[in-house]
Amino acid sequence: MRVINKPSKNQWKQLLERPYVDNSTVLNSVKEILKSVEKGRDGTLKELTKKFERALLTELKVSEEELANAEKMVPGELKTAIQQAKENISRFHQAQVRQEERIETMPGVECWRKSIGIEKVGLYIPGGTAPLFSTVLMLAIPAVIAGCKEIILCTPCNEEGDVHPAILYTAKLVGVNKIFKIGGAQAIAAMAYGTESVPAVYKIFGPGNQYVTAAKQLVQMQGIAIDMPAGPSEVCVWADETANPSFVAADLLSQAEHGPDSQVLLVSTQAEVIDKVIEEVNRQVQMLPRKDTALKALENSKAIILENSDTAMDMINTYAPEHLILCCCDADQVAERITNAGSVFIGHYSPESVGDYASGTNHTLPTNGFANAYSGVSVDSFVKKITYQKLSKEGLASISNTVVQMAEAEGLEAHAQAVRVRMQQN
Amino acid sequence: MRVINKPSKNQWKQLLERPYVDNSTVLNSVKEILKSVEKGRDGTLKELTKKFERALLTELKVSEEELANAEKMVPGELKTAIQQAKENISRFHQAQVRQEERIETMPGVECWRKSIGIEKVGLYIPGGTAPLFSTVLMLAIPAVIAGCKEIILCTPCNEEGDVHPAILYTAKLVGVNKIFKIGGAQAIAAMAYGTESVPAVYKIFGPGNQYVTAAKQLVQMQGIAIDMPAGPSEVCVWADETANPSFVAADLLSQAEHGPDSQVLLVSTQAEVIDKVIEEVNRQVQMLPRKDTALKALENSKAIILENSDTAMDMINTYAPEHLILCCCDADQVAERITNAGSVFIGHYSPESVGDYASGTNHTLPTNGFANAYSGVSVDSFVKKITYQKLSKEGLASISNTVVQMAEAEGLEAHAQAVRVRMQQN
Repeated sequence: MRVINKPSKNQWKQLLERPYVDNSTVLNSVKEILKSVEKGRDGTLKELTKKFERALLTELKVSEEELANAEKMVPGELKTAIQQAKENISRFHQAQVRQEERIETMPGVECWRKSIGIEKVGLYIPGGTAPLFSTVLMLAIPAVIAGCKEIILCTPCNEEGDVHPAILYTAKLVGVNKIFKIGGAQAIAAMAYGTESVPAVYKIFGPGNQYVTAAKQLVQMQGIAIDMPAGPSEVCVWADETANPSFVAADLLSQAEHGPDSQVLLVSTQAEVIDKVIEEVNRQVQMLPRKDTALKALENSKAIILENSDTAMDMINTYAPEHLILCCCDADQVAERITNAGSVFIGHYSPESVGDYASGTNHTLPTNGFANAYSGVSVDSFVKKITYQKLSKEGLASISNTVVQMAEAEGLEAHAQAVRVRMQQN
Repeated sequence: MRVINKPSKNQWKQLLERPYVDNSTVLNSVKEILKSVEKGRDGTLKELTKKFERALLTELKVSEEELANAEKMVPGELKTAIQQAKENISRFHQAQVRQEERIETMPGVECWRKSIGIEKVGLYIPGGTAPLFSTVLMLAIPAVIAGCKEIILCTPCNEEGDVHPAILYTAKLVGVNKIFKIGGAQAIAAMAYGTESVPAVYKIFGPGNQYVTAAKQLVQMQGIAIDMPAGPSEVCVWADETANPSFVAADLLSQAEHGPDSQVLLVSTQAEVIDKVIEEVNRQVQMLPRKDTALKALENSKAIILENSDTAMDMINTYAPEHLILCCCDADQVAERITNAGSVFIGHYSPESVGDYASGTNHTLPTNGFANAYSGVSVDSFVKKITYQKLSKEGLASISNTVVQMAEAEGLEAHAQAVRVRMQQN
């Protein structure tokens, strides 16, 4: 970790900059994949699965038998853990459902909103080194609570054509039964355009590599909604003199082990705290199975010493971290000062990993500074809100002059006329 | 209007298709504009204003004097109307603000969300044939309610370098004082990148022509949030035998007068109703100042006769109209069956124009079928929701096994370690 001592404010931009991810090299091949899937559909998907996953599939859809087998293969203790996580995540997300009241803005003019689940949604769960069944919980639970009618899930299979049993078990547990063995940009194409076996959806969710990200951006340009723009995962830890260096080190490492491009930022006013944390990081990292990955991520990581907590809050809000851990004595008050972050972990006993798995909050969060304008995934992400208005004849009468005046001033006579014609009627 | 009698379901897709808007021709020139503004900043903006608006500006920012003058130039009756609209829109949007409760998902595990206004937002108000001061209300009121700290507005000026007084008056009335005389793609560039006089923002809102739309799409790819994808405005009217043909005709025309690309769809089970409405449309259109525009829009408009109301509801939800007017006897029950629409106008006395101006609902709505996944603009559009979690040591203890089990199964040992290190401490 690089230690930076009291940087001046004009250094911040450069210090806090995320590494630029240039996807122009993958953009053309992703465009090709999108086009080929749109045209060749299931046949092309099978070809691409053979090419990329080296698996020969006769069926893209996971069968009932595979789902039943997966259930047998997941150890009991893990099942219990997944069920507990499901319960907490469901409880937190259920509370996001809201019945809105009707507002009478004027006598006889009633307006209201109603949330309606997006009818068809697609969830992407990446393959790779870790089977991200936790992401299945984080995406499928709010989708089910939102009332989405068709929830499909795409995830790559291994060479044998199998999907990790924990992913299948979790999907079935939360009520997702349409699972397809499709990975990468081709999965995004399948969900965007639909094929013989994969239904087209209106919104696509989930993390992924550069290809998946580029595919999501491209289909978004074509009118398919996506959850949010993506970037490498990141954590910022704010530590005061009460912080336990071994806790903070463990938190930094739990981010660093995600991938070599993970972003780790430690902020403190205490040089001594930073020294001790780095010492602990260097000790703890030796024991990790993903030591090499973590060490690479740490090369790009920064520990920043600042003059005072005001400056620190300013810097943290400028950085807009995906995850922010507040390892300090007055963590509740500090949390009140945060305006840009994905999720905030308050106090010494709230490590990021609880939010990654089981506290109840969602772990699909805005990275790359996007927390300045984007929220993490929630039930809101799976609904659209329709507005309604109902006017009585008296209500229309009370508002008619306002509408006519404004329509005429905007030069839209027919708008005025739609009111007048109703008022002129006996 | 083209009348289509009982189309078979496999004709629907083609029937309901919006005209394809090819922006590939403007994409390259918009890219050039974005690059040149990013580099040349205020200087380039002034050059482009000279080129496109034929106005020579020394200052891009609207002065206090101009704001004061505008107030004098707006007629008193219009001011009263704008104030009434402001009141209704404020009342409806204020009700969208919600304090969320803390959820204890397990003993000692507290989770909650908080809405925080996006710090910097930019509103674009197009110029052109109509001065859209109503859009100023629709964008700025929720921005102010959301607590956005910096709200800027860009709108093109005329050849004399002036902005329409009603736009300036409305902006000032709702509390927006940073107004810039910049139009088109260059306005989007200015708000995305910032210049000497224009602050960079995190999210950009507002309608516009093909250039503005393309610019918003391009800056979105670069990480600037935008309100929603754009398309020509549209209305769908569902009329039963109780519908008043002259009301329905006026509603169709109020959409048709927007522009030659406006989409107008009339759906009924009653051929007679459709005949009468078309007769009324042909009569009323003759009296409109924007008759030529409306006639062009009507050329592409469709009246569809369907077997029964079930089929009609199915078709309407497939179309996902921006505006849906229910001119029928059981409008409340019919509204319950709508799953895809931007805003719904219920009953014979709820013309679209009340929602366009003053009922209280927002008029910035998803077009082009995007209502299947997107909501209209609301206070939600101007906030991001941060999640928080706070665990006591006991709370962490109760969740620790769950987190450790899941982290290990995902192969993320450091995630497990961040919990263990805390539990091992005395």
